[in-house]
Formats: sequence, C-alpha cells, structure tokens
Amino acid sequence: MFEQLGLIGCGLMGGSFALALKKAGLVKRVVGYSKSPTTTDRARQLGVIDVEAPSALLAVSGADIVLVAVPVSASEATFKSIKHMVTPDMLIMDVGSTKGDVVIAAERGLRDQMGSFVPAHPIAGKELAGVEHADADLYQDRQVILTPVERTRGTQVAQAVALWTALGSKVVQMSPAAHDSAFAAVSHLPHLLAFALMNAISGQPRSKEFLTLAGPGFRDFSRIAASDPKVWRDIFLTNRDELLLQSRAFQAELQAFEALITGGDAATLETQIAQASATRSQWRMNQAD
Amino acid sequence: MFEQLGLIGCGLMGGSFALALKKAGLVKRVVGYSKSPTTTDRARQLGVIDVEAPSALLAVSGADIVLVAVPVSASEATFKSIKHMVTPDMLIMDVGSTKGDVVIAAERGLRDQMGSFVPAHPIAGKELAGVEHADADLYQDRQVILTPVERTRGTQVAQAVALWTALGSKVVQMSPAAHDSAFAAVSHLPHLLAFALMNAISGQPRSKEFLTLAGPGFRDFSRIAASDPKVWRDIFLTNRDELLLQSRAFQAELQAFEALITGGDAATLETQIAQASATRSQWRMNQAD
Repeated sequence: MFEQLGLIGCGLMGGSFALALKKAGLVKRVVGYSKSPTTTDRARQLGVIDVEAPSALLAVSGADIVLVAVPVSASEATFKSIKHMVTPDMLIMDVGSTKGDVVIAAERGLRDQMGSFVPAHPIAGKELAGVEHADADLYQDRQVILTPVERTRGTQVAQAVALWTALGSKVVQMSPAAHDSAFAAVSHLPHLLAFALMNAISGQPRSKEFLTLAGPGFRDFSRIAASDPKVWRDIFLTNRDELLLQSRAFQAELQAFEALITGGDAATLETQIAQASATRSQWRMNQAD
Repeated sequence: MFEQLGLIGCGLMGGSFALALKKAGLVKRVVGYSKSPTTTDRARQLGVIDVEAPSALLAVSGADIVLVAVPVSASEATFKSIKHMVTPDMLIMDVGSTKGDVVIAAERGLRDQMGSFVPAHPIAGKELAGVEHADADLYQDRQVILTPVERTRGTQVAQAVALWTALGSKVVQMSPAAHDSAFAAVSHLPHLLAFALMNAISGQPRSKEFLTLAGPGFRDFSRIAASDPKVWRDIFLTNRDELLLQSRAFQAELQAFEALITGGDAATLETQIAQASATRSQWRMNQAD
C-alpha cells in the first residue's frame, strides 16, 4: 500500500496506472503533472488524479511511488527535473517500450538516486492515446517486463514485482539489452512494417479504392499502424540498431519468398508458408495466470 | 430459390456457402463432392451437404447452382471435368482469392459454357480450414467481389447479385484485373509480410523467448500468418506479377523508413508515421449495410 503516487505524464499509460492502483486500493492519493496543463486538468476532472502539481518536481514531493510516463525522448530531462525530491526509499518506474536508453537517461538524470529506479515495460496499450482512454484494467492479464540494473536496490525491485502482480500483471525480469533485442523483433519491427504498408498503399493512384476493398485480415494486420507517431518515432530512434538488424533479417526472408514466387517453386513456397503457419498456429499469447 | 446446389470442394468456404444457403432457405438440396472421400463423408455427417457425389461431374448433374470451391490451382481441371453437365441456365461461381487466372481457367475448361460462370471472391475466411469450421454466417456483413467478363450472361450476374445480397453480403463488381491488383495490395501482400515475419523470427537463436514476450499487437498483426499453406501458395503464384509489384513498392517504403531511422531524422520520421497512422485511423472496414 502506497500513500501517494506522483504521476508524471497523465496520458493513456500513466492514467491507466493511476486508475489501476486506485481500483486495487493500493494508493491513497495521486498527484499528477503533465507538460500540457489541459491534460493535467482533464485528468483531474476524470478522477484519474486527485491533485494537479504545477511541476514534475512537485508531483514527486511527498510521494512514495513515482511513475514517469512520458515519451522516451523526454526521459532524461524528466529524471533531471525530479532528482532533488527523490529519496532512497521511493519506488520510481517508467513504462517505456525501450529500456537500454531509459537506463542511460536515468543514470544521467537521477545520478546517486539511480537505486530507486526500476525500469518497467508493461506489454499493454491501445491505439487511442490520451487520458480519455485511460483504463483501470489496461494492465490486467498482461506481461510487465522489469529490467533492473546492478545499481537498482533489491527492495525497490521486490516492491515493483509485488505491485504489478497485485494489478493482475505477469512480471518477467531480464536485462535491458535482452529486452530491447526481443522487442525489436516482436513489437518494433511489426509496427515499422505496418506503417510502411499503409504508406505504400496510400502512395498509389488507386489507394482509396484498394482500402475500400480491404477486409478482416487487413483490419487486424494493420491495427497497430494507427499507433501514436511521437511514441513510435522515439522507439524507432532509441532502439535503432536492434530494429535495423531485425528489419534486415525480415527483408532477407521476404526476398527469399519473392525468389520462390518469381521462380514458380511451388513445393518450396508451400513448405516455407507451412513453417510460418505452424509457428503462428502454435503460438499462444503469454498472459498472467 | 434454387432446387439443387452442386458443391465441388466441401472445405471451409464451400461448406459455409452450403450452410448459408440452407439457413436462408435458398436451396432444397446440396449434392457435394470433395477430392478426399473422408471430407465429403464428414460434410454429410455434419449436415453441410445432403448427398455425396462420387465425382465433380455427378455433383453438377441436376444442379441449378454450382459452387467451385477448390484450390485455385485445381480450377481448370475442375471446370473441364464438369463441362459436359453444365447448362446455359445454370449459375456457376467460384470463391477464389485471385480472379484473372480463374477466368482463364474457366475459359479453357468451360469453353462454350463460359457464359454460365460468374467469378466471385467473398472477402471472408478463417485461419481454421476444413469443413469442421464451416459457418452459416461466414459471408454475413462481408463484401463479395464479382468479376463478370464480356461473355458472362447478364441473367447469371443478376442471380449472383441477388443470391449474395440475400446472404447478407455486400456485392461489388469490377474487372478481374482491377480485382487482382487491389487484392495484391490489401490482402496478398499483408499475408506475404506476415509469413516472412514469422520465419524471420523463428530463424533466430532466441526465437522461443522472443515469441513468449510478444503481446496483443503481435497477436493481431500475425494472425493471418496462420493461414492455409496450399491456398496461399496458389494465390501467390497465380497473382505473381501484381504481388511482386506491391512487394517492391512496400520495400521502397520500408527502406525509406530505415534511412530516416539511420539518419536520425526525427521530424520526417514522425511525419511519415503520422501519415500512416492517420490513414489507418480514418479507415473503416466496408461492410454490408
């Protein structure tokens, strides 16, 4: 049980975290700050936060738990701005989709208070950004990856594990690097492909007609293309090396398929599709038990 | 109202058509044939067909409506095998995902009976193949593309439009070529990308761990990768030129994204993602009214 959550960034992810903590009865008071006063105001009107803070620093003042839910590119500046209010027994987490860069940002920003920070990535989200779409159940039955580093204090890691578990999430721990290569493959690359597909189609003269004809397969495949541009710009740039590696592995595979199609090699083509189909058929999303 | 449906191919698509016609009270009797006697037998046990025919020709005998629901590569042989029982007032349709090749196969196979054939592509399906998954509502609220050619008789086209409309589908008419280029972009390419992604991931040493971490975005994006290998082998090979054209347009777009990421051009990257995101957010699947 926490006394006060300092929420920095009252968007979909941060707002949902506040609502989830309230619903689970795990926090008494939420003090929120967003860069845009309109967002902070809206969050208070919606009951997502209880008190508006005029700055990130003041949102942290008096908190025993802090969630930094800002675009990844704003991490370092945010950590710097709150450093003077961070205490050794405070639990600080983020919700970013990349972890190596957040660890560097935290080391630079928090310096000797780095031990309070537990890097976190909840595998949850919606295509609809903004506090209006905040949802107390967003993290329920979802995985949350924690990537503590050597300096992270064990007490904070244990608190983070207990907290997410109480919210109905399944906690997985790994290194920031292991996290970033895995998510380059299963999340960042699919988003890149979905964005590229949409632009490849909309760049064609008959694009409007094409899109009118698209069915349920297209709907599901392209759903993630509607994601937030700023968030994904940051993810692509911060996880650049791993993403480009995965994109090249993908293109090699795509070009191998093209060669089979061009050459009319029906048997090998079927084998390759069958392999993909079997892998996908056997896959089950890992949810909290 | 039809007296007798001759169903050639008692799989998911054919079986669902038979069930839909029965549910709508549009047919009195369904005579079915499948290449595999086990499938035909199973279809009868499940009530999808009423009578098992020992050949495609005998399934057509006495029918006033015929659905050819076989893999695209088997179209020509099927049309040839039924030609002698086809009459000028019979309505023959297929359900193939490519149309240019089916028209050629029908011209070669049906010859002077070509006028009875209305090429059809219902934009519906499941990842689960087989008559066990046949569903009377599969075509409800889905688009059906009809691609009649010059020789197709108007009576048959009108019958086809009325029939699909009665099943709750929304009928769209276009040329086979217009159909094939549109579906290369919005269906065949996404399937190719989904297959290539699965194989690119499963070819990596940490693939099992990667897949364990994948979340809802991956789930929806990769759903179509579980599709039937034979069906998609045929689609890729029969719509080869249009598909390769789309795949190249896609790769050009992907490589443009890679260049922005490599160069760290945050502003243009955000603009490009925003364009994709806006296109996808504004898109609505076109359903029957």
